[in-house]
Amino acid sequence: MDVIKVKANSRTAAVAGAIAGVMREHKHADIQAIGAGAVNQAVKALVLAKGYLAEDGIPIVCIPEFVDVEIDGKVRTAIKLVIDPKE
Amino acid sequence: MDVIKVKANSRTAAVAGAIAGVMREHKHADIQAIGAGAVNQAVKALVLAKGYLAEDGIPIVCIPEFVDVEIDGKVRTAIKLVIDPKE
Repeated sequence: MDVIKVKANSRTAAVAGAIAGVMREHKHADIQAIGAGAVNQAVKALVLAKGYLAEDGIPIVCIPEFVDVEIDGKVRTAIKLVIDPKE
Repeated sequence: MDVIKVKANSRTAAVAGAIAGVMREHKHADIQAIGAGAVNQAVKALVLAKGYLAEDGIPIVCIPEFVDVEIDGKVRTAIKLVIDPKE
């Protein structure tokens, strides 16, 4: 299962659809964003995805983490949003 | 219980301390942020607060929502991060 990578110019509806699809299939999703614009898009997409999944009877919760990722040889700190069904 | 309002120039450590304090007292916290910079600071603060609260045996989860807030007579869409103990 791949991490859903979000950029500042990602479309929230597209990201939300990806989150919902991964959640339906795997009951788990990881979203990664680097920088304020990307984190904002990721959180907005998550609100939309929450709505889609609620209609399917899959309430979700999110746990945010820091992760170090290497991009072009440089280490950057990303935000990872870990999505699981609400227990 | 007041909403914890986060701005783009809020210090993450201060916000994290506020989140942890409210969670310890009320077992629930609401964080509000408007704009990409504020949402990013809120999510980073939440990662820090999660660490503080884990040390206290209070694992947390987050559910993001959109909320309309009126500022200077104009309606703006804010992100509300609803924080609850992990069930």
